[in-house]
Amino acid sequence: MIKTFNDMRNELMASGQRHRIAAVCVYDKATCDALHQVEEEGIASTFFIDGETPEDAAAKGVQMIHDGKADILMKGLIGTDLLLKAILHKEKGLLPAGHVLTHISVAEMPTYHKLLFIHCSEKPSPKFPFVDGYQDIKQMAEMNSFGPCLVDGPLDVKSACSLHALKAKGISSVLNGEADVLIMPDIEAGNAFYKSMTLFAGAHTAGVLCGTQCPVVVPSRGDSTEAKYNSILFALVSL
Amino acid sequence: MIKTFNDMRNELMASGQRHRIAAVCVYDKATCDALHQVEEEGIASTFFIDGETPEDAAAKGVQMIHDGKADILMKGLIGTDLLLKAILHKEKGLLPAGHVLTHISVAEMPTYHKLLFIHCSEKPSPKFPFVDGYQDIKQMAEMNSFGPCLVDGPLDVKSACSLHALKAKGISSVLNGEADVLIMPDIEAGNAFYKSMTLFAGAHTAGVLCGTQCPVVVPSRGDSTEAKYNSILFALVSL
Repeated sequence: MIKTFNDMRNELMASGQRHRIAAVCVYDKATCDALHQVEEEGIASTFFIDGETPEDAAAKGVQMIHDGKADILMKGLIGTDLLLKAILHKEKGLLPAGHVLTHISVAEMPTYHKLLFIHCSEKPSPKFPFVDGYQDIKQMAEMNSFGPCLVDGPLDVKSACSLHALKAKGISSVLNGEADVLIMPDIEAGNAFYKSMTLFAGAHTAGVLCGTQCPVVVPSRGDSTEAKYNSILFALVSL
Repeated sequence: MIKTFNDMRNELMASGQRHRIAAVCVYDKATCDALHQVEEEGIASTFFIDGETPEDAAAKGVQMIHDGKADILMKGLIGTDLLLKAILHKEKGLLPAGHVLTHISVAEMPTYHKLLFIHCSEKPSPKFPFVDGYQDIKQMAEMNSFGPCLVDGPLDVKSACSLHALKAKGISSVLNGEADVLIMPDIEAGNAFYKSMTLFAGAHTAGVLCGTQCPVVVPSRGDSTEAKYNSILFALVSL
């Protein structure tokens, strides 16, 4: 059972697999160090992709995935917009028709007993942007549409992650205060949660783009080596 | 300089003032204990307001403010909607015409060196709900429209509260990562921030309704004695 980033690493090391990362524009120390670390630990092979322009490098990285020469794409010191443009390219990109591009973050905190995944909801209705559709989604979950998982909501963060808070509110939930995943109502709430957990709750975090043909590691420029390393682990275990 | 709830209490005790709290429907232990504590510490006099119905009790509490018999209104075990209805009553209520009702929260956290105040923004434009108006607000602040304070935004929580994060992002701000107040883009972001700080960052919190003729303490039913006590302190220092 993976409950920490360290568990992720141990699982990857035990698997003996060595997936390949195509990293685009590795010009900063944190990205470089994170890639060296996974290479040294033997959990991945890394390719540093350069180009005459950032656009060119991004296209090359995406092409490596298409050619089956790499399993994961990673962003170095290149604008996220430029990499996304290559990923979203209609013919040469990495997003299959009909797939939804999603960014999933995961946080490890000393005050929660397991990893907590966070992503934002899609296409809210303009009329009831945040409370519409819950019943439908819960029914779909009960019919196993999302695989073996329990879904409940709307719930506030405390009721979702604390049985004590749930009981104090006098409500019940199939989650029992044991949420593994929080789907935030919008990017504003997601961002406020994510940033404040890092700053005030000592959270270690990672993030990966999903919905694409392969996991894409898209760290922020300001992310530490550790955050970039954790994001690589997250991409590797999601393969 | 008030940097903790304890500083608030010390300041109130040193002031020698003894303001009066009209508490409506004090039927739960936490509210009762919190009121007894401020009474015993000599920082406030408390009145327990009852009625034949909750609506009646709410009206009586509001009337006490009008009659100058109390300085602060507090909610006990009564629905917030019922107390709000009495507060918002056009003739007999507590919201002067043209005033905006706002809920301000404050958090004390072991990972921040001072109190952090949080409230939600008002009336976002439907077109650009969260980024509109920043320039106007900053200009008004520079012209001293809000009194002696520095205003900047949009900023994420980390850039607002950490000089380190601000520098890592390569941006500058008059706040220098020293924000005292966060104005959240919407109630969803505010709620996610507030609840997760309490649950994951060990935050002690308090909240007060402002814009009204007097501060109104409106705790959640599930709030602890300590949270209710802190909210009373917050109301008292904001007089």
